[in-house]
Amino acid sequence: LFFLQFQITYVEALGDLLNDLAEISNSRERASKLFQWLIHPIPSKSFFKDTWEKKPVLVQRQNINYYKGLFSTAEFDRILRQENIQYGVNLDVTSYTNGKRETHNPPGRALPFTVWDFYERGCSLRMLNPQAFSSTVWNVLSILQEQFGSMAGANVYLTPPGTQGFAPHYDDIEAFVIQLEGKKHWRVYDPRCPSSNFSQSEIGKPILEVVLEAGDLLYFPRGFIHQGDCLPDVHSLHLTVSSYQRNSWGDLLAKVVPAALEMAMEEDVEFRRGLPLDYLTYMGVQNSDKDDPRRVQFLSRINGLMKKLAAYAPVDAAVDQKAIDFFHDCLPPTLTAEELASSVHGAPSRWENGKAVDVGALMKSQTRIRLIRSGIARLCSDGEAVWLYYTADNSRVYHKEEPKSFEIKPEHTDATEFLIHAYPKFVTVGSLPCESAEDKVSLAGVLFEKGLIHTAEPL
Amino acid sequence: LFFLQFQITYVEALGDLLNDLAEISNSRERASKLFQWLIHPIPSKSFFKDTWEKKPVLVQRQNINYYKGLFSTAEFDRILRQENIQYGVNLDVTSYTNGKRETHNPPGRALPFTVWDFYERGCSLRMLNPQAFSSTVWNVLSILQEQFGSMAGANVYLTPPGTQGFAPHYDDIEAFVIQLEGKKHWRVYDPRCPSSNFSQSEIGKPILEVVLEAGDLLYFPRGFIHQGDCLPDVHSLHLTVSSYQRNSWGDLLAKVVPAALEMAMEEDVEFRRGLPLDYLTYMGVQNSDKDDPRRVQFLSRINGLMKKLAAYAPVDAAVDQKAIDFFHDCLPPTLTAEELASSVHGAPSRWENGKAVDVGALMKSQTRIRLIRSGIARLCSDGEAVWLYYTADNSRVYHKEEPKSFEIKPEHTDATEFLIHAYPKFVTVGSLPCESAEDKVSLAGVLFEKGLIHTAEPL
Amino acid sequence: LFFLQFQITYVEALGDLLNDLAEISNSRERASKLFQWLIHPIPSKSFFKDTWEKKPVLVQRQNINYYKGLFSTAEFDRILRQENIQYGVNLDVTSYTNGKRETHNPPGRALPFTVWDFYERGCSLRMLNPQAFSSTVWNVLSILQEQFGSMAGANVYLTPPGTQGFAPHYDDIEAFVIQLEGKKHWRVYDPRCPSSNFSQSEIGKPILEVVLEAGDLLYFPRGFIHQGDCLPDVHSLHLTVSSYQRNSWGDLLAKVVPAALEMAMEEDVEFRRGLPLDYLTYMGVQNSDKDDPRRVQFLSRINGLMKKLAAYAPVDAAVDQKAIDFFHDCLPPTLTAEELASSVHGAPSRWENGKAVDVGALMKSQTRIRLIRSGIARLCSDGEAVWLYYTADNSRVYHKEEPKSFEIKPEHTDATEFLIHAYPKFVTVGSLPCESAEDKVSLAGVLFEKGLIHTAEPL
Amino acid sequence: LFFLQFQITYVEALGDLLNDLAEISNSRERASKLFQWLIHPIPSKSFFKDTWEKKPVLVQRQNINYYKGLFSTAEFDRILRQENIQYGVNLDVTSYTNGKRETHNPPGRALPFTVWDFYERGCSLRMLNPQAFSSTVWNVLSILQEQFGSMAGANVYLTPPGTQGFAPHYDDIEAFVIQLEGKKHWRVYDPRCPSSNFSQSEIGKPILEVVLEAGDLLYFPRGFIHQGDCLPDVHSLHLTVSSYQRNSWGDLLAKVVPAALEMAMEEDVEFRRGLPLDYLTYMGVQNSDKDDPRRVQFLSRINGLMKKLAAYAPVDAAVDQKAIDFFHDCLPPTLTAEELASSVHGAPSRWENGKAVDVGALMKSQTRIRLIRSGIARLCSDGEAVWLYYTADNSRVYHKEEPKSFEIKPEHTDATEFLIHAYPKFVTVGSLPCESAEDKVSLAGVLFEKGLIHTAEPL
Repeated sequence: LFFLQFQITYVEALGDLLNDLAEISNSRERASKLFQWLIHPIPSKSFFKDTWEKKPVLVQRQNINYYKGLFSTAEFDRILRQENIQYGVNLDVTSYTNGKRETHNPPGRALPFTVWDFYERGCSLRMLNPQAFSSTVWNVLSILQEQFGSMAGANVYLTPPGTQGFAPHYDDIEAFVIQLEGKKHWRVYDPRCPSSNFSQSEIGKPILEVVLEAGDLLYFPRGFIHQGDCLPDVHSLHLTVSSYQRNSWGDLLAKVVPAALEMAMEEDVEFRRGLPLDYLTYMGVQNSDKDDPRRVQFLSRINGLMKKLAAYAPVDAAVDQKAIDFFHDCLPPTLTAEELASSVHGAPSRWENGKAVDVGALMKSQTRIRLIRSGIARLCSDGEAVWLYYTADNSRVYHKEEPKSFEIKPEHTDATEFLIHAYPKFVTVGSLPCESAEDKVSLAGVLFEKGLIHTAEPL
Repeated sequence: LFFLQFQITYVEALGDLLNDLAEISNSRERASKLFQWLIHPIPSKSFFKDTWEKKPVLVQRQNINYYKGLFSTAEFDRILRQENIQYGVNLDVTSYTNGKRETHNPPGRALPFTVWDFYERGCSLRMLNPQAFSSTVWNVLSILQEQFGSMAGANVYLTPPGTQGFAPHYDDIEAFVIQLEGKKHWRVYDPRCPSSNFSQSEIGKPILEVVLEAGDLLYFPRGFIHQGDCLPDVHSLHLTVSSYQRNSWGDLLAKVVPAALEMAMEEDVEFRRGLPLDYLTYMGVQNSDKDDPRRVQFLSRINGLMKKLAAYAPVDAAVDQKAIDFFHDCLPPTLTAEELASSVHGAPSRWENGKAVDVGALMKSQTRIRLIRSGIARLCSDGEAVWLYYTADNSRVYHKEEPKSFEIKPEHTDATEFLIHAYPKFVTVGSLPCESAEDKVSLAGVLFEKGLIHTAEPL
Repeated sequence: LFFLQFQITYVEALGDLLNDLAEISNSRERASKLFQWLIHPIPSKSFFKDTWEKKPVLVQRQNINYYKGLFSTAEFDRILRQENIQYGVNLDVTSYTNGKRETHNPPGRALPFTVWDFYERGCSLRMLNPQAFSSTVWNVLSILQEQFGSMAGANVYLTPPGTQGFAPHYDDIEAFVIQLEGKKHWRVYDPRCPSSNFSQSEIGKPILEVVLEAGDLLYFPRGFIHQGDCLPDVHSLHLTVSSYQRNSWGDLLAKVVPAALEMAMEEDVEFRRGLPLDYLTYMGVQNSDKDDPRRVQFLSRINGLMKKLAAYAPVDAAVDQKAIDFFHDCLPPTLTAEELASSVHGAPSRWENGKAVDVGALMKSQTRIRLIRSGIARLCSDGEAVWLYYTADNSRVYHKEEPKSFEIKPEHTDATEFLIHAYPKFVTVGSLPCESAEDKVSLAGVLFEKGLIHTAEPL
Repeated sequence: LFFLQFQITYVEALGDLLNDLAEISNSRERASKLFQWLIHPIPSKSFFKDTWEKKPVLVQRQNINYYKGLFSTAEFDRILRQENIQYGVNLDVTSYTNGKRETHNPPGRALPFTVWDFYERGCSLRMLNPQAFSSTVWNVLSILQEQFGSMAGANVYLTPPGTQGFAPHYDDIEAFVIQLEGKKHWRVYDPRCPSSNFSQSEIGKPILEVVLEAGDLLYFPRGFIHQGDCLPDVHSLHLTVSSYQRNSWGDLLAKVVPAALEMAMEEDVEFRRGLPLDYLTYMGVQNSDKDDPRRVQFLSRINGLMKKLAAYAPVDAAVDQKAIDFFHDCLPPTLTAEELASSVHGAPSRWENGKAVDVGALMKSQTRIRLIRSGIARLCSDGEAVWLYYTADNSRVYHKEEPKSFEIKPEHTDATEFLIHAYPKFVTVGSLPCESAEDKVSLAGVLFEKGLIHTAEPL
């Protein structure tokens, strides 16, 4: 059986946890700790071995405060009031009544006056990218994306008592349903063939049925059909964290395979060889029923070439293509106070008493530096030049910014790679493998100005 | 002579002034008062009669605090630190040395660390839309645009001592140079034929030369060439407020004239009459030197038709086209506390203690309403339907949002017009000229939800 | 009354006429003669004075051979067989039965096998640009366009006995209905307000009703509603020649007026003057009922400026814009044997006995040249350079080629204008007003290579 | 050694050959015979076994008339005179002098007057698609494309004595250089890495050097560097027939492989499995030097999946994608007199004596039909419907027409396939495997109207 029930005797408040995480020097460790908190008490290692991508799992904690501080309906109300929330862009108003799923978005801004009116009339509210409006959700997701190596997204769902907002359906992501307030009755069903929504009669009997309470967690992999509805007497607020969209071996192969073919055609004369003069007379759909030995031979040739293709696969270059996509998807990091203080953001240059002061602090040979986060930057090559891709200037709004990168000069390439691999260790500018002292200082300067490195001690 | 010098004995701080303005019920009066403050002690009336669009004027106040609170270099530094300022988008780094004008924008975010370094090296800094980052500038401009009936924009210029950031040039707007800190040496020259920048030798002798000090104002109309440079010992910070770009009679005629011609061709057979069979043999550039009576007759016919065109000019429709452009350009209003409280923003609907409370307050027949601002909404017709254009959902960033409008149902048209003309008076919902009580309440509801009206007392 | 009946005693066959026209040296005379033949026996002069653009006119000749040789159903059949006629592109299959107008075009090529099947089943056939397939129609139209100074187009209509192919409607061109075979019953009605098709009940009583027979002509101006149907016992074939589409004073003004405004704004400060500060409060549709003296003043100002606009109208430049459009619309000329022989087409350079012979014949000072046609080329200026537009490289298919032009060097401009105005006279190369003998020869060479001039004697 | 020299004692003139080919009922046989004539006396079979795509071959026939009638400079001159040949589109003027390759195309139409002038000044002339202007070249290529199962293209090259028009270079097609007039000195070199043009010093010593004379043939495969120049005393005219551009196994795989991956991701869970959480930390260019067992495992997994991919390859569908491209590239067939007579083109429907006659001839059950050409039509499926692609409505100008196809109704699919496979045999309409007699006749009617079938006897 794939769910667990137990009583937590003590739990750290989320605020304290995030403060503790900020003390952890290595951002990959931070990510790992935060994920462990998310699925506690299931050990991460066994989760990824037995459950991840395989089956749903339920954690019932009997501790309504477990996820406290992550998000709340009060925060929802504050966001409506203070931020420019647009119906259809940031907020969806939905209902699922008598088997009919409807969306009720009017045009324009979503203010409490109209939003709560919809809610009172039984509509569910889905906030589409709470990370753009809630600093805590942003912080949590920006840490988790480092654990997943794939974009971590989120939606918030607020459902009035006695209603359901969505039809049974499945998604193409790994889903962590985090119950924040109230209760929700969930049913999860076996995966089924693609279709957007399902009627109740199509989906069979649930393999898991439970009432999720605040502090509980429900995980299910892509493809599992699910639906949730509220009990008559209490609303429900939950946050669904998602990841691993288009992050399969097949998605990587979609980058590898065309590149492999291009390479094979350049290097292997067999791929450049002409097709048989008469192949159109025995191949193709209109000939597919023919019993022709030439068909067998043709198919076997294709088969042979496809197998040979593997030898030409530029896997690292294709992985970098995926990494570049991921970097574009990433949230920018939420820097800790210490990270801020020791990076360009905390540099002392400022305006004071009618002049600019403390301007021009420079990297020195003995200055100790490192990447500000493990996953903040990555070296990729386009075959001609080497580029450093980075996430630091991304927006909290998905893809609002173009992918960010700049060219790394040949004399800086080794040192950049060295710095990336040195993380989490600080290294001195003087130890960078560049030919000249000038090159070392100039590389450190560039990376510091872009906010990609910080120093062991404030400049 | 077109400048003035005098000593102000008392001046209200800008904060107090804005608080006082918030008390003024009619937004047009607010605008007028604020503009009077800007050009004080020149009376508005005489300014628009004698100076506006005609000649430069200088106000030297010997009161460095006159514009205090509007903007400061400290605010500039804060914005660099807290907002996402991008080189080339929100900030330009420029220099003008030995007759050579250069721009030094690197890519990416402008943080104090690099910005102050540019400044120390003698570069000028121009912040392009301070209204997006400074609430005070936003507030001031959003009020002034109602005075001008044309977009009010602004740039901030910070110049290091002993430098100049821009070549002599002229602009196509009315400019109000508001000196905020330090001093700047200004020279203004007679208007000249179009060209982007000028060399010192082309521009002749200045018609006005002055050292502007904090608290001073310099106004010059479009077309006047100007340049400003810093004294060796003190920096300069000024804000230039601009307006009346493409807001001339000619700009309106560009909307009127094609529409007039379309109408004339529909209604007047003379415009539909065919051209003479052989006109190509005596008209056109290759025949322009010909002394042919048919040319005289042809030109006279064109002349006659062009004069007749005036009779078909759909002036009101063309004005609305200009108004729609202006509404798109407008800053959204910065609402006062009272405006917020009595509009949809202050509606009591909220989340409290696990439920939505005070939901569904409704307009009643006796509820007293009016537009929240004089210039917030405008009725226009596209020939088939009537649309209400409005500025309330615009962005602080120029044209970031599409023009906003919605269709007004025929049963609501008269009442909407009534409401617009009633401003600044409040009228009861019951007094709206609609056929049914339901229509009255429904129109009031729509306008309230869009944030276009407020109520005399909070709902 | 606007129709005529008479008996022609003698008529020249079209072939002979075209041969005779080829003898006329001046292409404008040719055009005029051909048009006179078209409307014979109405004198051209009185036609353009009394009838053109004013009222329908009918010419019944009782001479079925009058238009013989222009086009025939046999030619129609030949074209279907030999040319790539596409349904929907070059040929429409239509019917109008019981008040219902239908189009029956299948996809693909129109071959006699399917086309005559449609015909037999009662469908009308409209060939859309017979000039692309019939050399005679091309020749006739390419001559007539010089008479009209506006594109001359044509459609062919073949209608089975006892049927009608089109609903009553009107067109926006001057129409010459040339009955070629059989008979057609025509009804023409007073002009009516725009609409594509009309029902029989809408159009009232015809102002002209006639059975057109082969050799007859029916002219009606734009806007006159018309319908034609076949008698039960005989088919009808007619060609409609059309001209003067978008060729009215209003169409020219659409080029003049925006250019005039642009010029006025540059030259006249009154057009650059700003609009009144508060004009949006009393102008526009929402204020159009207001009785405000400022409205009167505003409208009067607009009126004044519009009248003033006439003073800035760049009429010749606008005429050239129209001329450029016309040149793009033009059919290329069909050169006579003599024109061919004396132009670049007849230059003796050729391949013979394994080598290129008679290569490099050159213009000499005494060579006598002129434009190959009056309307073949036109000098226009874009304000910076002078361009020669020409029709010689146009396609027989409407707008298949881009507008053709090339820049005329400053040293060639006067000579080109001289040459244009000299037509129909031949002038020697030596007499061209260029500074150097080289320039004269080089200009003549360029124009000769482009096919725009021919020589008095073959080179 | 790869060239041959021999004396032909007798050769059929091309005109006679084409007449004889027209007698051959099966178009595939026609193609094969024509190709045999092209490479005579090398037997086709041994050519394709030993030479094709492998090495150059030379046929010296000492018979200057062997290719007579295919094309000539006289025909070239005629085309310049009669067709609208445009510089840069249909004709290139080139030179290669002192190692410098230049193109001299002026704008506009290429008339003998200017073309022969270029030639006399030592420029080479390349006509780019002679098949659009020469019926014989069109006929020959349209037959050969059936032999190749790939587009057959051609260029004509005319070179003045003692000159060279092109730098040494190689092409990506199989080339048959057909010497038509005069002589040309050819040098062929070993294939080399890609580059557009080569200097003389880069290419080494020729592997084949010969003076090609009229009647000779030189074949070389893609990639072989070549150059040709004229002897001092005689011009050269040759036609290069090309084929097999982008027609390799690799080009087919570019269609197969993405489709295979899509299918694998749908059907095989291994392809949908998520990537390892931490793969970005050991894969990618920045990690490619790492000695990490996880890299080995990752690469092996990719390797395994790529090999597995072969199992999902939809080869027939991909072949049809290639076939559709080929059909788009194809020249339309040049029908023989007999094919014309027995197809829709020869149907007796026509206009005669004032009426349409012999209209409506219909397919009957006993009518014997077959495809008009083996390669004229092909059944393809897009997964939802079955489409018949065909070449009959293509243009002689490359890709001037869109790909042509129409949907085949389910009740016609089997019969269409039956008809395609029956070729070259005629079958009766009654024998088509349709459910109803009506379906049989309707399918035959559709195919006849589209010109895709002909009848054993004229209808």
